[in-house]
Amino acid sequence: MGSLVSEINELKSEIRAFADARDWAIFHTPKNLSMAVAGEAGELVSEFQWLTAEESKKENLDAEKLNDIKMEIADVALYLFRLSDVLDVDLAEVMREKMKINEERF
Amino acid sequence: MGSLVSEINELKSEIRAFADARDWAIFHTPKNLSMAVAGEAGELVSEFQWLTAEESKKENLDAEKLNDIKMEIADVALYLFRLSDVLDVDLAEVMREKMKINEERF
Amino acid sequence: MGSLVSEINELKSEIRAFADARDWAIFHTPKNLSMAVAGEAGELVSEFQWLTAEESKKENLDAEKLNDIKMEIADVALYLFRLSDVLDVDLAEVMREKMKINEERF
Amino acid sequence: MGSLVSEINELKSEIRAFADARDWAIFHTPKNLSMAVAGEAGELVSEFQWLTAEESKKENLDAEKLNDIKMEIADVALYLFRLSDVLDVDLAEVMREKMKINEERF
Repeated sequence: MGSLVSEINELKSEIRAFADARDWAIFHTPKNLSMAVAGEAGELVSEFQWLTAEESKKENLDAEKLNDIKMEIADVALYLFRLSDVLDVDLAEVMREKMKINEERF
Repeated sequence: MGSLVSEINELKSEIRAFADARDWAIFHTPKNLSMAVAGEAGELVSEFQWLTAEESKKENLDAEKLNDIKMEIADVALYLFRLSDVLDVDLAEVMREKMKINEERF
Repeated sequence: MGSLVSEINELKSEIRAFADARDWAIFHTPKNLSMAVAGEAGELVSEFQWLTAEESKKENLDAEKLNDIKMEIADVALYLFRLSDVLDVDLAEVMREKMKINEERF
Repeated sequence: MGSLVSEINELKSEIRAFADARDWAIFHTPKNLSMAVAGEAGELVSEFQWLTAEESKKENLDAEKLNDIKMEIADVALYLFRLSDVLDVDLAEVMREKMKINEERF
């Protein structure tokens, strides 16, 4: 894609700027960020815990519930992108690498 | 970025193709995918649980440990992107929306 | 301990009575309860995510924070005991069994 | 129950002895133990992620799967009891306190 900045890298930069503006870098060790990912993933799974599989499908979620879920997905993503940024991990690359490994397993 | 396909959408398509080739769509309800995200986030946080904050930093991780962490980050990302795909959630959009909400809070 | 009812079994009974009084049994499948455990564990880890190891120690936690942590520990325990109850798992027994397995590993 | 040692306290003592024999106390900060609880809760939820609600019920689990689940329940419990021990939290007491709070909410 030539000189284009990647979408994921753009998002990482925006998250970094957000954290830096609040002097949060000191809190954002990889250890702490892994906890934040797990904490937000806990909130995400909570959204679904009393729904049946059917009720959890997009067409059966009301607008408010879907919005709550979107916000939890966003929270997990924000901390996961941030963790990737502080560890200098190329997210798209590792995702494709893991899919290749999974291809051989399944 | 004109008519370019977004990087995140490309990854979603690749993950979808991977799942479809294995007839996994039936398992990939939003409820089950939220559990998979939480499960992988648990494995990610496990990688860091006995490290100090200092030891968790990129410059202090050895190559093998860093690779293990990358693979766990990839696993969380793969299920999170897949969940976004089945719920038709625009990941970049909700991340920016959530950052805007956070801007007002912090 | 003769005919004494075990403390863990007493707690399981109290949690079961609480759930039954609210007609929650239908929601309390093992699958859903495992999600509830993970969700509450996410809230527990969130309490600690920005604390240093030192700050997380009992003597350094203020009363309010310690109380928040206690309530999250209770939430994880309530769902874990409930899951053990619906699966008819003897919690003390499996804990001791797992410690024996760990003794050989470590 | 007079001078009887409580079952939960006995288990805490056994876990403490296990950790002390391996010089693990230094790793067992409340922060790290909260991560271990979340990590094990992730493994527990993983056991159930591709099962339907029906398949997750005791009568539908085969012996091997049920045993895997028991071992994951034990792992969460071991770290949760250990965390309660290092924070000097009376687990039965906080569980009953939380049930009382929930009684007013639901």
